[in-house]
Amino acid sequence: MVVVMVPEATQEEVDAVVQLVRSAGGDAFVSRGVSRTIVGLVGDVNDFDALNLGSLSGVVQVMRVSAPYKLVSREHHPARSVIRVGGVPIGPDTMSVIAGPCAVETPEQTLEAARMAKRAGASLLRGGAFKPRTSPYSYQGLGEAGLKILAEVRQETGLPVVTEVIDAESVDMVASYADMLQVGARNMQNFSLLQAVGRAGRPVLLKRGFSATIEEWLSAAEYIAQRGNLDIVLCERGIRTFETATRNTLDISAVPLVQRLSHLPVIVDPSHSGGRRDLVLPLTRAALAAGADGVIIDVHPEPLRALCDGDQALVESDIQEIAEVVTVLSPLMGRALTMAESSAPSARPGALAAR
Amino acid sequence: MVVVMVPEATQEEVDAVVQLVRSAGGDAFVSRGVSRTIVGLVGDVNDFDALNLGSLSGVVQVMRVSAPYKLVSREHHPARSVIRVGGVPIGPDTMSVIAGPCAVETPEQTLEAARMAKRAGASLLRGGAFKPRTSPYSYQGLGEAGLKILAEVRQETGLPVVTEVIDAESVDMVASYADMLQVGARNMQNFSLLQAVGRAGRPVLLKRGFSATIEEWLSAAEYIAQRGNLDIVLCERGIRTFETATRNTLDISAVPLVQRLSHLPVIVDPSHSGGRRDLVLPLTRAALAAGADGVIIDVHPEPLRALCDGDQALVESDIQEIAEVVTVLSPLMGRALTMAESSAPSARPGALAAR
Amino acid sequence: MVVVMVPEATQEEVDAVVQLVRSAGGDAFVSRGVSRTIVGLVGDVNDFDALNLGSLSGVVQVMRVSAPYKLVSREHHPARSVIRVGGVPIGPDTMSVIAGPCAVETPEQTLEAARMAKRAGASLLRGGAFKPRTSPYSYQGLGEAGLKILAEVRQETGLPVVTEVIDAESVDMVASYADMLQVGARNMQNFSLLQAVGRAGRPVLLKRGFSATIEEWLSAAEYIAQRGNLDIVLCERGIRTFETATRNTLDISAVPLVQRLSHLPVIVDPSHSGGRRDLVLPLTRAALAAGADGVIIDVHPEPLRALCDGDQALVESDIQEIAEVVTVLSPLMGRALTMAESSAPSARPGALAAR
Amino acid sequence: MVVVMVPEATQEEVDAVVQLVRSAGGDAFVSRGVSRTIVGLVGDVNDFDALNLGSLSGVVQVMRVSAPYKLVSREHHPARSVIRVGGVPIGPDTMSVIAGPCAVETPEQTLEAARMAKRAGASLLRGGAFKPRTSPYSYQGLGEAGLKILAEVRQETGLPVVTEVIDAESVDMVASYADMLQVGARNMQNFSLLQAVGRAGRPVLLKRGFSATIEEWLSAAEYIAQRGNLDIVLCERGIRTFETATRNTLDISAVPLVQRLSHLPVIVDPSHSGGRRDLVLPLTRAALAAGADGVIIDVHPEPLRALCDGDQALVESDIQEIAEVVTVLSPLMGRALTMAESSAPSARPGALAAR
Repeated sequence: MVVVMVPEATQEEVDAVVQLVRSAGGDAFVSRGVSRTIVGLVGDVNDFDALNLGSLSGVVQVMRVSAPYKLVSREHHPARSVIRVGGVPIGPDTMSVIAGPCAVETPEQTLEAARMAKRAGASLLRGGAFKPRTSPYSYQGLGEAGLKILAEVRQETGLPVVTEVIDAESVDMVASYADMLQVGARNMQNFSLLQAVGRAGRPVLLKRGFSATIEEWLSAAEYIAQRGNLDIVLCERGIRTFETATRNTLDISAVPLVQRLSHLPVIVDPSHSGGRRDLVLPLTRAALAAGADGVIIDVHPEPLRALCDGDQALVESDIQEIAEVVTVLSPLMGRALTMAESSAPSARPGALAAR
Repeated sequence: MVVVMVPEATQEEVDAVVQLVRSAGGDAFVSRGVSRTIVGLVGDVNDFDALNLGSLSGVVQVMRVSAPYKLVSREHHPARSVIRVGGVPIGPDTMSVIAGPCAVETPEQTLEAARMAKRAGASLLRGGAFKPRTSPYSYQGLGEAGLKILAEVRQETGLPVVTEVIDAESVDMVASYADMLQVGARNMQNFSLLQAVGRAGRPVLLKRGFSATIEEWLSAAEYIAQRGNLDIVLCERGIRTFETATRNTLDISAVPLVQRLSHLPVIVDPSHSGGRRDLVLPLTRAALAAGADGVIIDVHPEPLRALCDGDQALVESDIQEIAEVVTVLSPLMGRALTMAESSAPSARPGALAAR
Repeated sequence: MVVVMVPEATQEEVDAVVQLVRSAGGDAFVSRGVSRTIVGLVGDVNDFDALNLGSLSGVVQVMRVSAPYKLVSREHHPARSVIRVGGVPIGPDTMSVIAGPCAVETPEQTLEAARMAKRAGASLLRGGAFKPRTSPYSYQGLGEAGLKILAEVRQETGLPVVTEVIDAESVDMVASYADMLQVGARNMQNFSLLQAVGRAGRPVLLKRGFSATIEEWLSAAEYIAQRGNLDIVLCERGIRTFETATRNTLDISAVPLVQRLSHLPVIVDPSHSGGRRDLVLPLTRAALAAGADGVIIDVHPEPLRALCDGDQALVESDIQEIAEVVTVLSPLMGRALTMAESSAPSARPGALAAR
Repeated sequence: MVVVMVPEATQEEVDAVVQLVRSAGGDAFVSRGVSRTIVGLVGDVNDFDALNLGSLSGVVQVMRVSAPYKLVSREHHPARSVIRVGGVPIGPDTMSVIAGPCAVETPEQTLEAARMAKRAGASLLRGGAFKPRTSPYSYQGLGEAGLKILAEVRQETGLPVVTEVIDAESVDMVASYADMLQVGARNMQNFSLLQAVGRAGRPVLLKRGFSATIEEWLSAAEYIAQRGNLDIVLCERGIRTFETATRNTLDISAVPLVQRLSHLPVIVDPSHSGGRRDLVLPLTRAALAAGADGVIIDVHPEPLRALCDGDQALVESDIQEIAEVVTVLSPLMGRALTMAESSAPSARPGALAAR
């Protein structure tokens, strides 16, 4: 059950709802969005019916929500949301490219990758300083030193930073450097981490787990929302299937389906889905044509020397093609490309021809 | 191992290759394409090396092919193939829409669906007269009576007919009505059927099995090719995964990947992949943007009364949008839309905006 | 809807039911079992209610069945069935081992494998003469020559023969040699083949498809039953999952679950499930302890020279252990081992200790 | 690369290895087991070869290990390990039952479930105080209050306690109550948690992730081992597949396969695998017959009132059957049942007959 407050609801009005619910043996979680405040109730719905919550001051509406997720559901929030990351909007009217190196390795590599990202049409910089790796013997990232490099490159290029956080303890530290906190696929049901980023005051990029159903993915987003943070962007990055020709199987249908079930933006990671450089361009076109609100792409100045996932990173010669794709598709999809600089070419016949 | 003959190779020259291989304990399969003839060898490669096949009259080239499929492999046939169905080309330079009812039910329903198909931009008519269904208690199709309806509707509309064949016995009968024979997902490894359609003198639409790897799919195509028929179009129609929110999971990555591995055209079935009418449009956009050579779509004048898969059929109000998608995307993808009539609108900003 | 006839129902009584159903626009399929005859109805249940079928002469009971399969359902046939293959019973009171070579290669190899099978406790001989292979360049079997070898080895050893049939055309020919017809995993939804074996007058071993749900598997069995043949044994042989360490993933839970849903016997193929010789013994123990009515196992005198699936074949040194497993587990599971000869050792502590 | 030290190696000798490796630009992790100390090296193997580590004092052996996991690999530790939990051994010579309620709800429910567990043959008590649930609106457990109940029930019954820990922050608190720390399926790749339990001085029960390959599972165990804790028991609990008739698909093949790849004990959770009470008994028999070192089972005095997973909990009437299964199978598998009290019946024919 969800209680929607009027935009101008006071703290006292919200507290009154929470206390009444708790007095009836339930619990209540407050989520303050930009335009309104929502209170999610946990407990026996029948007990709450007797409380006449709708009659309390400041309450607009009391809704039963049938899905296991409520605050992130489109059922109770029909308008699709816009999430702002360092001033850059991600939502239904824009097309956003996030790009950068899989892992931050050196200041030079990161700066060069960020410049490639800009030329590709990116308005946000990705880069991992903490890398959760299957084997403890694989490269684990630079840690806080990597975050400092990202902050410097942001200073240099103007690109806000998206970076992964891997445990609850380090959320505040990472948030002090990052514009957006990424929760990776392996941590999608690390509920302590979800609750910590829910309190961190930064927008969150929530990747879908390897084998998470759409319902589980949205329920994970609900854990973040329940702690008061509705600034969540969902990222489809491929699921695990029997097919071994690709690293993962991009579930392209998830894009339009999640947009029907949730008001949150959905972007796609064509790099980790396919795990092959030669699939990034066609999967980017597919994702944006399916209606994705953006893409997140690995680029690297020297993929052969990359410490992480070099096989899937785009190189300099791919950059112009990505720029063309987003330039051509954004107006056709009724969206504005959120570019850091305007250097992309105009549309021409055959611009998207498969290469 | 594959022996490529000169275009003007005589039957005697081809027979000489076959006999030499058989004399060495191997076997040989001849495939006559439009422009050249290929002989695929089965047996011990080392034995064949000693035969000096390259020195025989009429032989252009002798190739070792590493994949378990050879004739359909791009490794030995770098140029992507064009397959003609009733005069309509499917290949790298065109974008083709096949549309029609899932099942042929009545002459009126089929004709009306064919007219919807044409308005949607289709140049080929689909429609099932033999329906392989999970339960024997589900509707199994009209059989030959359905094929007669399809032939009449072809007469009326000019659309060549694509229809499913479900066993080797009925291949010749179905081929006498159809312009293209469809092998369904459940029969992808029905090798007797594959060999029968390989001898049928009609182009074949080979759907990917529910849980077939890309290698298994191309190996199934090889069974058809080995019987002399290289006029094969592959159709990605979704694979089986743990996700239950969609009927199947469209493996969009398979489109560019198969185009790298095989010279055969690849189209996508957005209707059976998602199993939901509201996903057909975004999945069509995604498929074509990923580089698919076409799509095959269910349409029905009255889906609520459909005897088969009514949930996924497009209705009249969707037709204009599909027409816009293919009109806008074909030039951008560097392709010509193979339309039955030219009634589609021109491109305008926002034409593809997700709805 | 299912109509159960009295054991002594005449042909006229059965025909009367069928004609009444057809006159109401439906269709009816007659299955004659050993002890009773069942008529399965296809069409609108509400139409049939009005027919008062229960009042017809010879009718015991008219039942609505909710599953998409009816004749094979335990809902309408609570007692678990016993299927006899060349006189050997497979069912709830026995434990049956089927063993032999994956493919029939030579008379000597087949005879030697059959003798290994007997020493392992087998009462039935398996062996493939028609091998449906993923690639057309893999060994496809000896065909009818292989069936003749099997018939000779049956003569020599007394073991009834289980062998695969791969298309409807060859069902009668294969049935003239075999005691039991196997339908392989790739053909589980080859409905023409299912209907042909349903008319062949031989018991059928129906393997589960790579990615078939239990409901689809039982629906496939229904296609056979509907043609009048209820002598069906189901075989779990592993399903396709993301795990690549084993060839397939043995779905051990399917054994008890299918026994609850269907009255048909269920056996397990530990050889094709794991695809590794070292897993055959533990998976055999697991299958029989889970309650399987038997197992089907690959054995080969010289696996390194096997033309098909040599990695998974048991060798001479494994035979004694398999014999011990079935000897020890059969009484504990309340079953009699259906052995061709009585040479197995008696139970001793540690007899099943993992090796 | 792994350096094995002599049993009596001093701290100085171990430190010397670590410092030499670090001076060469690598890193080293020390694991002290009961009988020996192992140092795992991270970095370039070629650099380490030049160090002549084998010549250092206290070093027995220097091994290259090819798998992405090393310390948990059987390649470098051929003898299968025995892990002791509150004095109870889990390993190759014993058969251990862990049983109890899915969630601790009240002192009475927990005590009653523990008594059921003992009667079922259990030597260890399971019970969750922290429940990671897909939806934030599901029951999340009693927290520390639940741990206190478990400690009281241990006092009452003598059963050591196995309980889940869900984040790094609470590891020490949970470890102060528990005899064994469980890491759940959703947290299998929560590397911060794995490292925290690696330092906690308690044995760990590591459940396999929903879609984790065997290699990923063992690599997760390696994260724990690398922090100095080799007291790890692996638990197969079903993987995610397309089959929806069971909650998960028990990967029974993983039991013998992991025992070949790793020296760690492997147990099976038949309750969460099948998710149905009627499958627990056959899956328990299958698991133990496959060679599992134990099972972990949900029991509940009143499943209809359970706050978590009541559908799969065994009830009083099932207890005797479980006791019979473990009593009968343990000697046959060459194992001693680690029972808390000796009240189980002796073996009789038909004792395991499927019910």
